[in-house]
Amino acid sequence: MLGPNQYGKAETRLVLVRRGAAEHELVDLNVSVALAGDLADTHLTGDNSKVLPTDTQKNTVYAFAREHGVSTVEEFGLLLARHFVSTVERARVSIDSYGWDRLGPHSFARTGAGVRTAVVSASADGEWVVSGVRDLVLLNTTDSEFHGFIRDRYTTLPETSDRILATAVDASWRHSGVTVDWDFVYDEARAALIAAFVNTYSLSLQQTLHAMGSAVLEAVPSIVEVRLSLPNRHHFLVDLAPFGLDNPGEVFLAADRPYGLIEGTVLRDDAPEAGLAWSLSSGWNG
Amino acid sequence: MLGPNQYGKAETRLVLVRRGAAEHELVDLNVSVALAGDLADTHLTGDNSKVLPTDTQKNTVYAFAREHGVSTVEEFGLLLARHFVSTVERARVSIDSYGWDRLGPHSFARTGAGVRTAVVSASADGEWVVSGVRDLVLLNTTDSEFHGFIRDRYTTLPETSDRILATAVDASWRHSGVTVDWDFVYDEARAALIAAFVNTYSLSLQQTLHAMGSAVLEAVPSIVEVRLSLPNRHHFLVDLAPFGLDNPGEVFLAADRPYGLIEGTVLRDDAPEAGLAWSLSSGWNG
Amino acid sequence: MLGPNQYGKAETRLVLVRRGAAEHELVDLNVSVALAGDLADTHLTGDNSKVLPTDTQKNTVYAFAREHGVSTVEEFGLLLARHFVSTVERARVSIDSYGWDRLGPHSFARTGAGVRTAVVSASADGEWVVSGVRDLVLLNTTDSEFHGFIRDRYTTLPETSDRILATAVDASWRHSGVTVDWDFVYDEARAALIAAFVNTYSLSLQQTLHAMGSAVLEAVPSIVEVRLSLPNRHHFLVDLAPFGLDNPGEVFLAADRPYGLIEGTVLRDDAPEAGLAWSLSSGWNG
Amino acid sequence: MLGPNQYGKAETRLVLVRRGAAEHELVDLNVSVALAGDLADTHLTGDNSKVLPTDTQKNTVYAFAREHGVSTVEEFGLLLARHFVSTVERARVSIDSYGWDRLGPHSFARTGAGVRTAVVSASADGEWVVSGVRDLVLLNTTDSEFHGFIRDRYTTLPETSDRILATAVDASWRHSGVTVDWDFVYDEARAALIAAFVNTYSLSLQQTLHAMGSAVLEAVPSIVEVRLSLPNRHHFLVDLAPFGLDNPGEVFLAADRPYGLIEGTVLRDDAPEAGLAWSLSSGWNG
Repeated sequence: MLGPNQYGKAETRLVLVRRGAAEHELVDLNVSVALAGDLADTHLTGDNSKVLPTDTQKNTVYAFAREHGVSTVEEFGLLLARHFVSTVERARVSIDSYGWDRLGPHSFARTGAGVRTAVVSASADGEWVVSGVRDLVLLNTTDSEFHGFIRDRYTTLPETSDRILATAVDASWRHSGVTVDWDFVYDEARAALIAAFVNTYSLSLQQTLHAMGSAVLEAVPSIVEVRLSLPNRHHFLVDLAPFGLDNPGEVFLAADRPYGLIEGTVLRDDAPEAGLAWSLSSGWNG
Repeated sequence: MLGPNQYGKAETRLVLVRRGAAEHELVDLNVSVALAGDLADTHLTGDNSKVLPTDTQKNTVYAFAREHGVSTVEEFGLLLARHFVSTVERARVSIDSYGWDRLGPHSFARTGAGVRTAVVSASADGEWVVSGVRDLVLLNTTDSEFHGFIRDRYTTLPETSDRILATAVDASWRHSGVTVDWDFVYDEARAALIAAFVNTYSLSLQQTLHAMGSAVLEAVPSIVEVRLSLPNRHHFLVDLAPFGLDNPGEVFLAADRPYGLIEGTVLRDDAPEAGLAWSLSSGWNG
Repeated sequence: MLGPNQYGKAETRLVLVRRGAAEHELVDLNVSVALAGDLADTHLTGDNSKVLPTDTQKNTVYAFAREHGVSTVEEFGLLLARHFVSTVERARVSIDSYGWDRLGPHSFARTGAGVRTAVVSASADGEWVVSGVRDLVLLNTTDSEFHGFIRDRYTTLPETSDRILATAVDASWRHSGVTVDWDFVYDEARAALIAAFVNTYSLSLQQTLHAMGSAVLEAVPSIVEVRLSLPNRHHFLVDLAPFGLDNPGEVFLAADRPYGLIEGTVLRDDAPEAGLAWSLSSGWNG
Repeated sequence: MLGPNQYGKAETRLVLVRRGAAEHELVDLNVSVALAGDLADTHLTGDNSKVLPTDTQKNTVYAFAREHGVSTVEEFGLLLARHFVSTVERARVSIDSYGWDRLGPHSFARTGAGVRTAVVSASADGEWVVSGVRDLVLLNTTDSEFHGFIRDRYTTLPETSDRILATAVDASWRHSGVTVDWDFVYDEARAALIAAFVNTYSLSLQQTLHAMGSAVLEAVPSIVEVRLSLPNRHHFLVDLAPFGLDNPGEVFLAADRPYGLIEGTVLRDDAPEAGLAWSLSSGWNG
């Protein structure tokens, strides 16, 4: 029996230059499309009469950039998703947007402070927009404790009242509708995440996660749910005693693996049903 | 409102040497743990009294390797998951197992033909095991066609009756129970996947995906569901006409991005409920 | 016969927090050490009596951070290199320094605009310092042409009078001495590189490379040589004619591979001998 | 003053299918070209009249694959390098060759046991071929000791008489000429490297390195120099005493960073001058 399935073109790299008189603007995107619907024939017999080729999806991304421009990633995703659901049942357009700092009228330098994301899903039943940021690396040098946890036979971790807290934020927030001032709301949500990370005196990374998600909901009324995935990038205090040195919270080893991984959701009591916002098929991750 | 959440230690790298008299055996794992349950306190107030530290989870992985050994990744995952649900409500243990070829009684070379995976989930309600393989890169130089697809305004792809079909298999299969000859079944499932890829005359990668999933179900009665994610690693025939040369299916450019991505599920009509097999929290991906 | 050889500890990750009263400062380094000298015994017989363990090198990095602090990466490299040449013949300390933007008195966000580097080499014969930057991604949307090149049987590239020019700068500059205002000179050199990229009307990436190297030499009298490695990150204008659309320099495909790679050196006529600046052993890369 | 410089197209991905009657053969390459010579004009004024575009270099790779086939990577590199030095002064062609195991007459699976490499350099003065292997990951579970090393104030490493020794071999060997049975010699050299790693009772990774290089020279008379770069992939014995468990060389933590890095050369007393074998420009790495 064929279960949930989808297909599409992943990672179409689109760079758009807007050539104004005085200066150029730069849009740098990575666009992935996924389509779902009545695709049993191609799975069972290789009959592709209901298959829109992934190559066509790629072409459509480039053509739409020329025909409609890219005002925001969310609007561009909506345009594309609406187009695809004229052909197939369900469509999802996922876009990563890379930031560039202006150096001159037509010169730019890539920034590194996180990638802006948007995931737009559409079907005959509705449209859903999730915006977000990932790879936003934040660090507090203090105001982080961790104690009072379960101790069992395998617990050796000492309690601490002062540690470095560092993470690479991967956050997504679901909007209640599709008529939104996307750039404004993105800036508000991102600022709320950062402010909550900076200002929360943290007793656990979970507490910080909850504060960050709550801050986004407080800052933007039209956001109804926030999902966060926060790796705990451990910084271990180096034992310098063998060298006759103390180490009063100064010299740390930044570890790669293993790492803690804290994931959670904060949502409004009255959040509407998520529909296809997080998945094109119920029970399917993607 | 706090929604679905989980936490754990990711990517604990464990290498186990079994020192037999005649020769050594090598087990090379990457173990990730995720726990879920009544974690509201740590999110809301930073009260960690119900939090088993991720550091303890890491210690447990190493200690269990010594106490119980690692017979198979599935059994090791079950041991760990059962241990953790004595403390928390729900636990998931995900293990990657890297293959090594024997070079001598205590010498080995890393193989590259895919990574064996296992994901074991447990709660008071049951236990679920998903096994799989990922990064298994397969290629057919012929017996692959693609035509008869939708043509719209943005379609330029020519139909083809002979192309290279290449993919990096990411496959997971759900078992009906937890009493299984894991190594035998893994070998059977993996062999079935490969044989189906090799022997399917393909009219679409979807058709090949379905054949691969069905082959696993046919080969192993105790497997009830197969999920496959198959990137289409495009190989484009290079146009050599500008140099006065033909190119009868011989010289190809292997492209990086964009790529097609085909994902699908094949399951038995009478497959039991998936429970926590694919996710520790309903509606949560992970 | 044993030829050139060296050994050391690579990628020791050191994070240093300076806890001032009002605010904290953060230093985030990746330190690699390489030592060379009379190491024939360990190669030929495994006699390690002249081997300073790489583990000790790692410990030394952490202990020196506490004992001496890190004023600049160049000074920290000099301290370490001088220490190691008290034991071995030749030493090299290579440091990557990751940038962080301040968010609060003890809060930071990782920046992405390039990694600052320093390579310090020392022996009884002298000390050499090379500073640099890598992964600094720059892009001009115009003012770049490419024409007048050789055309042979295999040339299909059209000439262009307007293209995107993008690269990830990997630049290293050699100092004439070791008494330098390192932070000031780094800022000057980096600014000169960027200004030259921005302001050069480019007829080839080689011309831009030369302008960038020359600009550093002009900006900083104590720098005597600049080495640049500039991948040409191709942005191809997408052909939208099949969709009835023009494309006046607006919609581009950002390609991954293959890429052009332009490498070159600009140095002063009277630059002193490079000594060990670029390599611990003559004829050896590293 | 313009110093050493070079340019070229890096990472042209070429897949070649040989369509025999009974079965197909697969060649999977990553080809990088670097050219050097009288390139002052393009650096100083942007006059490209002596520049063969990197795009043309890419085209040439594909066209030569069709015109001449690929018998071995070394022969293919020689064909290309000779072609390019008809236009420019010095040329280098570097090729990575990915291995595939046969699954059927036209079906293959990617292997992982190392990438075969070749670097061919040519000028009016001669031709040089360096072959090699990289990413060949080897591990001995025993027969490795490390003791008798220098102990200074910063040394805490205990001596050990039994440890895991693991590395990812990056080896290159220089041939005395260009008329060689390349495939045979590659197999001999690779087998010699592996046998030496397996059979050397190791007192230091340097000793193993020297044994591996010497073994290649002994196995293949026409090889005159071997360069090896061997990261020491540390496997640390986990301290299980806190859990009341011993750990007799059984449970290890595989660490990522930092790592030891051991690099060395073994060459014949009468090895001819290396010429351009290791670098297109004296004093330039690449």
